[in-house]
Amino acid sequence: MNSTEHAAARSPGRCIKLTVAYDGTNYQGWQRQATGPTIQSALEAAINCIAQDDVHVSGSGRTDSGVHAWGQVASFHTKSKMPADVFRKALNATLPHDIVVRHACDVPITFRPINDAISKRYRYVLQPGRINDPFSLKHAWFVKRILDVPSMQAAAQALIGEHDFATFQSTGSPRQSTVRTMLDATVTVHDADERAKIFIEVEATGFLYNMVRIIAGTLVDIGQGRRTADSMAEIIASCDRSQAGMTAPAHGLYLLQVHYPPHH
Amino acid sequence: MNSTEHAAARSPGRCIKLTVAYDGTNYQGWQRQATGPTIQSALEAAINCIAQDDVHVSGSGRTDSGVHAWGQVASFHTKSKMPADVFRKALNATLPHDIVVRHACDVPITFRPINDAISKRYRYVLQPGRINDPFSLKHAWFVKRILDVPSMQAAAQALIGEHDFATFQSTGSPRQSTVRTMLDATVTVHDADERAKIFIEVEATGFLYNMVRIIAGTLVDIGQGRRTADSMAEIIASCDRSQAGMTAPAHGLYLLQVHYPPHH
Repeated sequence: MNSTEHAAARSPGRCIKLTVAYDGTNYQGWQRQATGPTIQSALEAAINCIAQDDVHVSGSGRTDSGVHAWGQVASFHTKSKMPADVFRKALNATLPHDIVVRHACDVPITFRPINDAISKRYRYVLQPGRINDPFSLKHAWFVKRILDVPSMQAAAQALIGEHDFATFQSTGSPRQSTVRTMLDATVTVHDADERAKIFIEVEATGFLYNMVRIIAGTLVDIGQGRRTADSMAEIIASCDRSQAGMTAPAHGLYLLQVHYPPHH
Repeated sequence: MNSTEHAAARSPGRCIKLTVAYDGTNYQGWQRQATGPTIQSALEAAINCIAQDDVHVSGSGRTDSGVHAWGQVASFHTKSKMPADVFRKALNATLPHDIVVRHACDVPITFRPINDAISKRYRYVLQPGRINDPFSLKHAWFVKRILDVPSMQAAAQALIGEHDFATFQSTGSPRQSTVRTMLDATVTVHDADERAKIFIEVEATGFLYNMVRIIAGTLVDIGQGRRTADSMAEIIASCDRSQAGMTAPAHGLYLLQVHYPPHH
């Protein structure tokens, strides 16, 4: 096959957008790896099994090993004529049970999950208490001390708006710009079950590497009284990673939603 | 060692009562088995490791393979002088992470978790919806159709009071009496998370084998409109297993609480 034939064979056909939930516990993150299972490889294997194709799946961004998703967005090009919702059902019958395609639809062939996203929403789940909960071991960060939620909520307000978020970026991961716009930041208590959980939710035009986990670590410091709620504005302004709290563990983090303009 | 010495060596010493939470996913139920891990064997191994003893742990009742507990009650006799709460911490440091001792205290040496219980409370967790939830695979029964919760709640009221519950007993498991008193029965919606769950909670002076799971299967039939809410009274009165619904799967069931008289 010459290069023209190869390009024709790989002509895009159509683009299908997927909304995917996954329990990240047993995966080495989103991105395809030489060793170990990833969400991207599992999706590609399932699609190629169904469509007898050799597709590449793009995601709205990587999630790290152990991070979960309720609404990761991914897309792929295929020449298959299968209706998108039938594809969804076939994928769910093929994928491991800890990955679920919640929605599938046709989108313009130019759709790019990472470039077209206008904002993302993450949740970080904390479980405060004296004793471990055997049902949340891989799904919440267990924090021994009681947390002062009103202080955390007050501090979270300082994150809202356009800021240079360099404070909340892991060192050694420079981006061209570290300015992002935080659209929402809330800290709320959810106690439907035996054990109350605290949800930190943040929505922004974009996130730096480990940004949500460093924000969560800093808010826990505030909740435990090691920093005041007022200190958040100074911590942001410092643009200094060492002024923020620890990077909270991966298993408390969930990619909740990725937002696109209405035409997608 | 003659039998007197043996009895002395095994003199009871004191009795410690434990309140235990466990994720039953990776266990073959409560009861010690020749093959495979159980909650009872895990507790005995941990206690014997800490107290250098050869204790037997009694539970308030068996839970089947895959069934969870938030408040199973167990007890053991030991000559160890370790304060009960120190024992609890040592146990939690020794046990696998999916078994957690929530509370430990000294009780009279005559305490028997199974005989002294005055009532037990169970929860059965349903997850209705069109698409599986990767976070509840082993912790809720996924039911594809939408459920009519008010009908289920109305039907549950018929369970309350003293009844012959023979309808809700797995065949081949006869007890001397199948009369029990149902103290509470509720069906409620919990939607703190992305996906609403339905909790069926029942509290009774005692339960027959598979009683909660058969009640759950019957209430799901009612929620799906295959039976009316009014039919519950007749189903109970029939004392005929074939009149009830299916036995709901084990992984939706949680032993929540075991109640004892105040002096325990």
